[in-house]
Amino acid sequence: SRSINLAVIPGDGIGQEVVAEGLKVLSAVLPQDVKLETKDYDFGARRYHATGETLTDADLDALKQHDAILLGAIGDPSVPSGVLERGFLLKLRFAFDHHVNLRPSKLLPGVATPLAGEPSIDFVVVREGTEGPYTGNGGTIRKGTPHEVATEVSVNTAFGVERVVRDAFARAQARPRKKLALIHKNNVLTFAGHLWTNIFNQVAEEFPEVTTEYMHVDAATIYLVTQPERFDVIVTDNLFGDIITDLAAAVSGGIGVAASGNINPSGEYPSMFEPVHGSAPDIAGQGKADPTATVLSVALLLRHLGYDAEATRIEEAVSADLAERTGKPARSTTEIGDALAVRVAG
Amino acid sequence: SRSINLAVIPGDGIGQEVVAEGLKVLSAVLPQDVKLETKDYDFGARRYHATGETLTDADLDALKQHDAILLGAIGDPSVPSGVLERGFLLKLRFAFDHHVNLRPSKLLPGVATPLAGEPSIDFVVVREGTEGPYTGNGGTIRKGTPHEVATEVSVNTAFGVERVVRDAFARAQARPRKKLALIHKNNVLTFAGHLWTNIFNQVAEEFPEVTTEYMHVDAATIYLVTQPERFDVIVTDNLFGDIITDLAAAVSGGIGVAASGNINPSGEYPSMFEPVHGSAPDIAGQGKADPTATVLSVALLLRHLGYDAEATRIEEAVSADLAERTGKPARSTTEIGDALAVRVAG
Ligand SMILES: CC(C)[C@H](C(=O)O)[C@@H](O)C(=O)O
Ligand SMILES: CC(C)[C@H](C(=O)O)[C@@H](O)C(=O)O
Repeated sequence: SRSINLAVIPGDGIGQEVVAEGLKVLSAVLPQDVKLETKDYDFGARRYHATGETLTDADLDALKQHDAILLGAIGDPSVPSGVLERGFLLKLRFAFDHHVNLRPSKLLPGVATPLAGEPSIDFVVVREGTEGPYTGNGGTIRKGTPHEVATEVSVNTAFGVERVVRDAFARAQARPRKKLALIHKNNVLTFAGHLWTNIFNQVAEEFPEVTTEYMHVDAATIYLVTQPERFDVIVTDNLFGDIITDLAAAVSGGIGVAASGNINPSGEYPSMFEPVHGSAPDIAGQGKADPTATVLSVALLLRHLGYDAEATRIEEAVSADLAERTGKPARSTTEIGDALAVRVAG
Repeated sequence: SRSINLAVIPGDGIGQEVVAEGLKVLSAVLPQDVKLETKDYDFGARRYHATGETLTDADLDALKQHDAILLGAIGDPSVPSGVLERGFLLKLRFAFDHHVNLRPSKLLPGVATPLAGEPSIDFVVVREGTEGPYTGNGGTIRKGTPHEVATEVSVNTAFGVERVVRDAFARAQARPRKKLALIHKNNVLTFAGHLWTNIFNQVAEEFPEVTTEYMHVDAATIYLVTQPERFDVIVTDNLFGDIITDLAAAVSGGIGVAASGNINPSGEYPSMFEPVHGSAPDIAGQGKADPTATVLSVALLLRHLGYDAEATRIEEAVSADLAERTGKPARSTTEIGDALAVRVAG
């Protein structure tokens, strides 16, 4: 019989609330014969304040035993900027080699967008997750003096670029429109830019059916607000991906519905799924957070584990739920989770 | 008697056409007693193909004699990506220490925006122009092999950050709302991020009337499309500034009306003014380009040289022209330039 052994990291702020609903929908959608085991991990601000730890080697060993990880949100104003990001979120992505950071953007019927007209938005960003300016390379000299110099080093390898570019081409090939855009800044960041562009062009030869284009990151932000329908699959560097996926989330319904997967395609390590939004401490504990982004992250998780039909059921339930929201009073976190659980079970 | 000794770099593509209109409006707005001298410089793709040169030491010496520089656009698909950018545009910014890259965003009445509703947009971005990932530091090893590694080094100095942060605070102080936002990614780029954040907080103490906030660059893209009215003055790093000013241009009427100044505030070197748009080779030579961004760059140039009344006259003429455009047939580059010249003279 089948089973899913899931690590659950509710985390900080609204993380707890939204993860509870994600798990509710997951339980409701799974067939009887699938055994779901979950184990909670108490990472985040509370543990950091209590122990000074963010993510230890023992933690990584424990997490590694799971089939996948569901994360709510990590981050709290009581912790200095960078400590949990570098000490937990990025540490986990690097340790588990989550090199494919998958972020779909789809504007669903009935969902508000800040854009005028009725743009049709349905694309997916494949963001590199283990290189670029995120490696933590760099440093500071003469800190705090008028002669301080701080550097950040973006590290890009043929190995790292090729595997994510290849993943993106395969995804583009599998979609009806078969389009792939490389987003970089190769006219200024010429060293990394040439590496990305050359590998992109090489791999393109193996996918003759995929239509490709190159776009500078600055120009891409313009197209994301003026012609978002132009995009099908986007592949990009870690930092550019961070920036454009927030913009993509904003135009396609907001971070309340933006899901993401930090994927290790080889399966050597468990992949992690999380809403794009953060811990939103200002509304934490009030039952106001929209769990939809987490529920959609559960769908990505299921698809990653091979439960395609269940993933699709969740996505359809979310579409139906969103389509009926207009004009109705706001519901609580639990109410939305309950409604989605009913729909997927039905 | 007063005089302006201007270096004119029409450049590539639509550069020629829009600069001609910029100069037309400049001549029309200047009082009789101001002597305008201009000298054309033939930089860009043509010169590169003919001589292999982009910007020589002798060119820099010649440009240095001028009071200011007006540039149309540089760039052509016939030149490999990066050659003119690094060899001309960035070389000039670095050689003339253009550390304040000023990019105002104002949504004028009658101008279309891709955003729904009627957002009120009036802010200015102060982008650092001589540091960050733009320095060209970095390199490549094992080029073209499966073991290639390419790095890009972002260099940030207390000297460089403090002067641009101070400039931005002074601009915020001089505006009615007196608000300044620092945009960075200090939770990931912790070395550079701490330098920027610490200096920002230190300088803030000297400007108690200025309200400050910090925002990650990814979150900033969300606010730029959902709450653009939130911004008054923004200060940011060279690369983040490149990205968000294109987005800012897109939401506030498009790059057809986005002006910029590459400013050396000390006056040791001439400052350069240019539209944010590029050379647009697809529409070059057809009289289709909108010269408004260049005309607004001329206004920034005049204000920089102390001709405040004339700068304001140009801005008012542009506002009036834009307000009357809705529903009218499109005009040619020359027709728009003529109309603006008549308005500023009138
Ligand atoms: C919190 C931060 C480290 C993270 C990132 O920059 O990747 C976040 O912005 C994201 O996009 O997942
Ligand atoms: C053309 C390029 C070098 C330039 C930049 O990146 O600064 C442009 O995008 C700009 O914003 O002026």
